[in-house]
Amino acid sequence: MKHQIKEAKGKLGVLMPGLGAVATTFIAGVESIKKGLSKPIGSVAQMGHIRLGKRTENRNPLIKDFVSLANLNDLVFGGWDVYEDNVYTAAVKAEVLDRFMLEAIKPELESIVPMKAAFDKNFVKNLDGTHVKDFKTRYDLAQAVIEDIKNFQKEKGCDRVVMVWCGSTEIYHEAADVHQSLAAFEQGLKDNDPRIAPSMIYAYAALTLGIPFANGAPNLTCDIPALVELSKKTKTPIAGKDFKTGQTLMKTILAPGLQARALGMEGWFSTNILGNRDGWVLDDPDNFKTKEVSKLGVLEDILMPEENPELYGDMYHKIRINYYPPRKDNKESWDNIDIFGWMGYKMQIKVNFLCRDSILAAPIVLDLALFIDFAKRAGMSGIQEWLSFYLKSPQTAPGLRPEHDIFKQLIKLQNTLRYLMGEDLITHLGLDYYEGILNEG
Amino acid sequence: MKHQIKEAKGKLGVLMPGLGAVATTFIAGVESIKKGLSKPIGSVAQMGHIRLGKRTENRNPLIKDFVSLANLNDLVFGGWDVYEDNVYTAAVKAEVLDRFMLEAIKPELESIVPMKAAFDKNFVKNLDGTHVKDFKTRYDLAQAVIEDIKNFQKEKGCDRVVMVWCGSTEIYHEAADVHQSLAAFEQGLKDNDPRIAPSMIYAYAALTLGIPFANGAPNLTCDIPALVELSKKTKTPIAGKDFKTGQTLMKTILAPGLQARALGMEGWFSTNILGNRDGWVLDDPDNFKTKEVSKLGVLEDILMPEENPELYGDMYHKIRINYYPPRKDNKESWDNIDIFGWMGYKMQIKVNFLCRDSILAAPIVLDLALFIDFAKRAGMSGIQEWLSFYLKSPQTAPGLRPEHDIFKQLIKLQNTLRYLMGEDLITHLGLDYYEGILNEG
Amino acid sequence: MKHQIKEAKGKLGVLMPGLGAVATTFIAGVESIKKGLSKPIGSVAQMGHIRLGKRTENRNPLIKDFVSLANLNDLVFGGWDVYEDNVYTAAVKAEVLDRFMLEAIKPELESIVPMKAAFDKNFVKNLDGTHVKDFKTRYDLAQAVIEDIKNFQKEKGCDRVVMVWCGSTEIYHEAADVHQSLAAFEQGLKDNDPRIAPSMIYAYAALTLGIPFANGAPNLTCDIPALVELSKKTKTPIAGKDFKTGQTLMKTILAPGLQARALGMEGWFSTNILGNRDGWVLDDPDNFKTKEVSKLGVLEDILMPEENPELYGDMYHKIRINYYPPRKDNKESWDNIDIFGWMGYKMQIKVNFLCRDSILAAPIVLDLALFIDFAKRAGMSGIQEWLSFYLKSPQTAPGLRPEHDIFKQLIKLQNTLRYLMGEDLITHLGLDYYEGILNEG
Amino acid sequence: MKHQIKEAKGKLGVLMPGLGAVATTFIAGVESIKKGLSKPIGSVAQMGHIRLGKRTENRNPLIKDFVSLANLNDLVFGGWDVYEDNVYTAAVKAEVLDRFMLEAIKPELESIVPMKAAFDKNFVKNLDGTHVKDFKTRYDLAQAVIEDIKNFQKEKGCDRVVMVWCGSTEIYHEAADVHQSLAAFEQGLKDNDPRIAPSMIYAYAALTLGIPFANGAPNLTCDIPALVELSKKTKTPIAGKDFKTGQTLMKTILAPGLQARALGMEGWFSTNILGNRDGWVLDDPDNFKTKEVSKLGVLEDILMPEENPELYGDMYHKIRINYYPPRKDNKESWDNIDIFGWMGYKMQIKVNFLCRDSILAAPIVLDLALFIDFAKRAGMSGIQEWLSFYLKSPQTAPGLRPEHDIFKQLIKLQNTLRYLMGEDLITHLGLDYYEGILNEG
Repeated sequence: MKHQIKEAKGKLGVLMPGLGAVATTFIAGVESIKKGLSKPIGSVAQMGHIRLGKRTENRNPLIKDFVSLANLNDLVFGGWDVYEDNVYTAAVKAEVLDRFMLEAIKPELESIVPMKAAFDKNFVKNLDGTHVKDFKTRYDLAQAVIEDIKNFQKEKGCDRVVMVWCGSTEIYHEAADVHQSLAAFEQGLKDNDPRIAPSMIYAYAALTLGIPFANGAPNLTCDIPALVELSKKTKTPIAGKDFKTGQTLMKTILAPGLQARALGMEGWFSTNILGNRDGWVLDDPDNFKTKEVSKLGVLEDILMPEENPELYGDMYHKIRINYYPPRKDNKESWDNIDIFGWMGYKMQIKVNFLCRDSILAAPIVLDLALFIDFAKRAGMSGIQEWLSFYLKSPQTAPGLRPEHDIFKQLIKLQNTLRYLMGEDLITHLGLDYYEGILNEG
Repeated sequence: MKHQIKEAKGKLGVLMPGLGAVATTFIAGVESIKKGLSKPIGSVAQMGHIRLGKRTENRNPLIKDFVSLANLNDLVFGGWDVYEDNVYTAAVKAEVLDRFMLEAIKPELESIVPMKAAFDKNFVKNLDGTHVKDFKTRYDLAQAVIEDIKNFQKEKGCDRVVMVWCGSTEIYHEAADVHQSLAAFEQGLKDNDPRIAPSMIYAYAALTLGIPFANGAPNLTCDIPALVELSKKTKTPIAGKDFKTGQTLMKTILAPGLQARALGMEGWFSTNILGNRDGWVLDDPDNFKTKEVSKLGVLEDILMPEENPELYGDMYHKIRINYYPPRKDNKESWDNIDIFGWMGYKMQIKVNFLCRDSILAAPIVLDLALFIDFAKRAGMSGIQEWLSFYLKSPQTAPGLRPEHDIFKQLIKLQNTLRYLMGEDLITHLGLDYYEGILNEG
Repeated sequence: MKHQIKEAKGKLGVLMPGLGAVATTFIAGVESIKKGLSKPIGSVAQMGHIRLGKRTENRNPLIKDFVSLANLNDLVFGGWDVYEDNVYTAAVKAEVLDRFMLEAIKPELESIVPMKAAFDKNFVKNLDGTHVKDFKTRYDLAQAVIEDIKNFQKEKGCDRVVMVWCGSTEIYHEAADVHQSLAAFEQGLKDNDPRIAPSMIYAYAALTLGIPFANGAPNLTCDIPALVELSKKTKTPIAGKDFKTGQTLMKTILAPGLQARALGMEGWFSTNILGNRDGWVLDDPDNFKTKEVSKLGVLEDILMPEENPELYGDMYHKIRINYYPPRKDNKESWDNIDIFGWMGYKMQIKVNFLCRDSILAAPIVLDLALFIDFAKRAGMSGIQEWLSFYLKSPQTAPGLRPEHDIFKQLIKLQNTLRYLMGEDLITHLGLDYYEGILNEG
Repeated sequence: MKHQIKEAKGKLGVLMPGLGAVATTFIAGVESIKKGLSKPIGSVAQMGHIRLGKRTENRNPLIKDFVSLANLNDLVFGGWDVYEDNVYTAAVKAEVLDRFMLEAIKPELESIVPMKAAFDKNFVKNLDGTHVKDFKTRYDLAQAVIEDIKNFQKEKGCDRVVMVWCGSTEIYHEAADVHQSLAAFEQGLKDNDPRIAPSMIYAYAALTLGIPFANGAPNLTCDIPALVELSKKTKTPIAGKDFKTGQTLMKTILAPGLQARALGMEGWFSTNILGNRDGWVLDDPDNFKTKEVSKLGVLEDILMPEENPELYGDMYHKIRINYYPPRKDNKESWDNIDIFGWMGYKMQIKVNFLCRDSILAAPIVLDLALFIDFAKRAGMSGIQEWLSFYLKSPQTAPGLRPEHDIFKQLIKLQNTLRYLMGEDLITHLGLDYYEGILNEG
C-alpha cells in the first residue's frame, strides 16, 4: 500500500550554519549542475538506482524517479558564518575547487552572503569569528536566528526550508540537566546557560518553526531529550550526526566485511592528515575529543566484542588526526588493520585513502536536505534512523544500538523508500529461482 | 513454518581432490580444533552469529546453534593428489603452518594418504604429477574415482560424504557440445574426449553417487548443463566456483560500498605476489586466464556500468598475478582504485593486503562442506546460490545475473537459513521503533 | 690546477629526436622559466649547490655560478617526430601540463615544428608514424639527418648544438658484427642493414658533426664500439643511457642505503602503472624487454651478490610495467622490498611513488644538455661516466662495472667539476676537526 | 702511511645500562653467532666490505679483515636494569625473538644477571623500576657504578671494556650551568643536583675509568661540555647519540636522494606504531619530546632550507609516535613526502616500513662496541664523528653542522678506516679510465 506523500512543489530553501569549505562546495556544485557544467556524483538521491520486485523484473529506476524529491533547480541557499565572506570568496579561500569552475558560477555564489553567526568562542577556541551576533542571553540569539529564517524564507519565496549544520566541531560536552526537557532547555536559554551550545540554538530555532534539521558535525546538538521532544511536538524530522566521509566511511565498509567472514581483529590504527580549517579546529584537544568519540564508537557497534570475545575481545582501536597544512582540504588517511584468521594466523590490511574532505561531504549535504524534506512531506517526524547511511554517529530511539554497518544502513534506507511507496521489501532470499526446497517444502 | 531437515548424525566424510596447501591447512586446523589447540576463526558456520526477530528481542545465536550442522568431531578426511606425500609431509612442504603446531597433530595428519589422482597434464602444464591413475578412457577414470569414494566411505564408516575441489586451476576452456547434456557427457567419457577436464570427472563421480560437490577453483567443472542435469537427477546440491579469498574478497567488500555512495570509478588496478604452488601454476598464461576471467567479472556485476554510464562507463579494470617465491603462501596484494566524486574531482584508494592464501581458504572449505551437507539433509538440490558468499564466480540459475556484492550474498545466506528454520526474514526496515509514519499510515 | 674551458657564449641548440611528452615538457618548462613563470626545479645544474673546501669555509655556491654553463636564455630547440604536431599541440595532447600554463607560452611552443622522423616501425610496433622520411638505405637517412642539423644550426644561428634522445624505447636487440667498428657500421648503413636502429642513425649524424649526444631511452644506440669509436674520432662527448626517473631513481637511492647497513635482501618486487604513449609502447613485450634489461641490472651492480652471498645470494628481483590509461602521464609505482636483519629476522619496506614521468625527466634533459655541452667545451670526449647520475644504464669504459649507487654517482659528478675547476676533491674525512689521532699520528 | 693501532687481544667486555629488548637481542644474537646458529646480518663491521684502491684493482675485503677488531668469541656482556630479570627472562618477555632460538642459548643468557640500576623516576615516569640502587647523592651513585665496572672487569677477566647505553629515553632537558665544566659537574654530583640525569652518571663512571662510551638513546648524556672535557682528559672516545633505526634511517637515505636531484619538498609526515616498552615510555609527552627533537633535526640539516629557500623554505615536518600494543616490538612506520618538481608540479612518495625495532638496533650496538674499542686502541679520543653513520643525532665538534646524510656518513667512516690503515682515500673521480681530459689536461 502506497503512503500519502505531499508533492515537492515550489522552492526549497537550504539553510546552513557554517558557510566554509563544505557548504560552499555543496552550493557551487549545485549551481554548476543547474548550468549543466557537472553531474551530482556522489549523490545517491540523484544518481542512485533502487531495485524493485524480483531480479527478473528488471525494474531498477533512479531513486529520484521513484520518489518525489525537490528538483535541483528549485534549491536556494543561505546560511550563517563567523566570517563575512560571500560564498564565492569563501570558496576561493577554501581552495577546494578549481578557479576555472568557480569563475563560471561567480555571480550565483557572490549573491549569497552569510548572516551574522550565533557564536560562542568557548566552543571553538581556534576560531576568531568577527561576523557574530551580539547577545545578552542565548534566548536573544535563538530569537534572532528565528527572525533570520523567516526573512530568508520570505525573501527567497521558499515553499519549504531545511537546515543542515555545516559548521565546525564544537568542544566535547555531555548532556546535562538543562538538556533533559524542552522546559529546562527554554529556561536555560533565558538564563543564558553556558552549557547550551551554539549548534543547539540553530536547531532549536529550526525545530520551533517546523523546519527539519540535519547535523553534519559530531556536536551534541539534537542528541538531547529537549530537542527530540521539540521535534515531536512540531512534527519535524531530525537526523544526525557527523557526515560519514573519508576514513569512517571506509571503516563502515570494511569492518562489516571482515566481521561477515568471522575474521578476528587485534587492532585498528587510523591516522590522517588534513590542512583545512576543520583540521585547525581539531588541533585543539577539546574539539578533537568530540570527533574522536564520534569516530571510535563505530567499530565496537559493528563488531560487538561482547558477543564475539574470541574474535574482538582484545581489539585495540586508535584514531589520530594531524593538522598538516601542505594538503589543505585534500585529507589523506592511513588505516592499519591487524586481523587474524584460521588457527590464529595474523594478517594485515592497509588502506590509504587520498580523499577530498569537502568533495565527499557535499553530496551528503544534498541528500540529507532532499531526504529530510521528503520525510517532512511524508509526515514522518522525530529521529530519522533510515538516514544513518550518511552519518558517523546515527541517532536512534532510546535503547536501540545504533547500526553502523553501511550496508544494513543502505538496506534500511532503500526498504524505507520501498515501504513508503508500497513496493515489496527486498530480502535477497531468491529461493524461488531454484528447484528443490520450495517445490517440495 | 519450519522446514523438515534431517539430523546431522554419524560421521561426515570430506573428500578433496588436491591435498596441497589449502586442503592440508584445512585438515590441520580441524584436527587442532578437535584437540582444543585452536579455534575455527574465519568459519561463519562455527563462529558467526545470526540475528533473529526484532532488535529489541536480543536473539543472536551462533549459526551452529541455530541450524543442525555436522559436529567437527564427526569430520573425517580423504583425498587425491598428484604427489604421494601424506598430509603431514605435504603440510610441511607447503610452509603455511608453524612446525610447532604441525608436530602436535602429526599422527592424525600422517594417517591421511592421498589416493592416486585423475590427472591430465594438458590442463595444468606447470605440474609434473607422478602419483596418477593409469587410464584408457576418461570413463575408466570416472569409475576408478567412484570406487575410491565407495572404499573411503566404507573404510571410514561415513554416514555422509561431501566433496570439495581443492586442486589447481586448470587451463581456460569454454563449454562445448560434449558438455551440453548428460548423455553427450557420458558419451564423451567413453570416447575419452579431451575437452572433459579432470575436475569434471571428480564432480561426475560425486554427483553420480549423490554426493554434494563444491568447487574451490575457477575451473569450468560443474558450470555445464551436463553436470547441472546430473545434480538434479540425483537430487544433489552443487556450489561453485573459486574460493573468495584475498584480493577478490576485498573487492566485493569495497566495490559495493563505493557504489552505494554513487561514487564514480575510472579504474581499478589489482596486482599481487605469491610464491606457492598455486602461484607457479598461474605463471602459465593459459591457467592464469581461467583465474583472470573469474576475477574480472566481479566489478562489472557490482557496478553495472550499463545502468550507470556516467559513473562506471569508462572504468578500466586490470588484474595481475606475479609469481614471487620469497613470499611462499603469504600472498600480498595491492589495489589502486581511481574514483571520482562531486563535480568530478578525483580521489584514490589504495589497499595493501598482507594475507595468507591458505589461511583464508581453509575455513571456506569447512563452511562449504558443512553447509552443502546441510543443504542435502534439507532436501535442496542443484545450484545453491545462497553459498555465493564464499565464491568468486557464483553459479546461478540460467538468465540470472550473479550477485557479487558480499553483503547481499550474506543476507541471502542468512535469510535462507531463517527461512528454512521458520524465522522472519530480516529487512532492516525498523520503522516501528519510531513514531510518525506508522501510526498515521 | 684549473682546467682550460671555453666560455659558453652564443646560442646553444638542443635537438631532440622524439617531441613527445618529455621533450615538450622540457621545452615548455624552459620557455616558462625564461618568462619568469616557473623555476628549474629538479635541475641540479640550475638549482644545486656544490660544497667547496672545508666545512668551516662555508663555500657552497650554485653549480651554475661555479662552472660555465649555457644560460637558459640562450637555449633554442628543435627536433624530429613521427607525428606532425607542433610542440604546443603535442604538449596539449600529452596532458602533462595545465592548459593555463601552456596558453602563456603558446607562441613559443607553436613555432617549434618537428622535422620528419627517421623511423622504422620494426623497432616500435605500437607506433604508427606518418610524419617520416622516405628512404632507400639507412645511409640516405643518416645524410638527411645531417642536413637537418646543419639547416637547424644555420637557421637558429647556433654557436653550438647538442642532441638528446627523447624518443620511444626501441625493441630489444644486441650488438652484432655490424656494430663492432665504424667501418662495418658505415658499410651497414649503405647496405641498409636492418640491425641498425633509427636511434643509431641520429647518433651517427650528431657524432659525425662533432655534436655531443645523450641517450634518454634504454636503446642500444651508442653502446656499440662503432659509435664509441666515432665519438673519439670526432672528439665528441657521449652519455647514456635511459633517464633515471621514478622507480629506478628510488631504487638507486634505497638500495645503497640498505646495502650500506649490511641488511640482507630476499626479494624486490617493482610494479607500476602508466597510461601515456610510453606506456603503450612498452605494452609490447619486445620493447618492454629493452626497458626491463635496463632496469634489472641496477640492483645486482649495487648489491654485488657474488661478494655478499649471505646477504644477496638468493635475491629475487621482478619488474612489471602495466599500461593503465586512467593515469596518463602520472606514473605510479609500488615497490615491495623483502629484507632481513639481525639473526635473519624478516622485515618489509614498501614504497609507493605517485610521480609524474615527464616532470621528472624534463630537468634531466636540461642537465644533460648543459653538462654535455660543458664537457665539449672542456675538451672531454667519448664516454662521460660522470653523467651516470642521470641514467639508468650508465655507459662505462670496457671492463668497468657501471656504478648505479646514486650517491657515488653524485660524488663522481661533483668531484669531476671540482677537479676541472682546480678545487680540492671532497673525501668527508674531516679528522682535522678533532684532537687525538692527527696530533699524535 | 699506516697508523699505529694496538692489537685486539683478550676479552672485550660490553657493558650496557638497560638490559631490555635491544640489549637482550644484541646479546642473544652474538651468542647464537658464536654457536654458528646465525650470522651477524646488519653489522657493517662483520659483513661489510670496503673498496681499496682503483676499481680495476678489485680489492674489496671485509672490514673485519681490513682493520683489527675484537673477535666475536672474545665478547662478554654485562649491564644494569631497573628490573631484576636475567637476560633470558628479559628476552622472553620482550617477545622479539623466537622461543626456539632462545632455548638454544638459554644457559648463556641466564648467566647474565643485571646489576642494580642507577635510576631516577623523574626522568622516566612510565617506568616503575624496583631493582635500583639506594643513594643519598648522585656522587654515591657514580661511585657505585664505578665499583660495578671494576668488579665486572675483574670477574670476567676483560682486557678492555666499552659501554653502550641501551636504556630508555629520558625526559627532555637542556644543558644547564651544572653541565658546563667537569668541575661544575662533579660539584653537582656531590650536591645531588637533580639536573644530572642517570645516563650522565653512567657515562661519567665509564669515562673516568677511560672506558669508551656510546649513547644509543636521544638523551643529553655526553652532549655536554663537562663530559666532553672528561673524555679528552682520560683520552677516551665517545659517540652519540640515538641509534639510527627504522624511520629515521629511511629518512637519511631518502632525503639525500631527493635533495641530490634538486627536487623541492612541501612537507614530510612521519608516523609510527610500536607496542614495546620503548613505545610505552614515549607515550609520555616529556620523553617523546627528547625523541622528537632528535628526529626533527635530520631533515633540516640535510636539506638546508636557508640555502635552498625555493626548494625547502616552506617545508612542514611532522613526526608522531603512537603506542599500539598489538605490534609489540614490531614497529611499523608510514612516511608521506610531498615533493614538487619541474614547473612546480606536485608528487608524493609514501614509505611503509614493517620493521623490527630491536632487530635493527642490535647490530648497531655491536658495531659501536667494536669500532669504539678500535678507536681507543688507535689512540683516538673525544667525539668520534666518523661513527655518525649509526646515530640519529651525531655529536660534532662545536661549530660544525652535524652531517645526517647517511652516504656522506658512510664515506666518512670508510675514509677514516682507509686513512688509519694508510690506504688512498676514495673520491670516485675516476677520470683516468677515460681518454680526453686527463691526457690533454
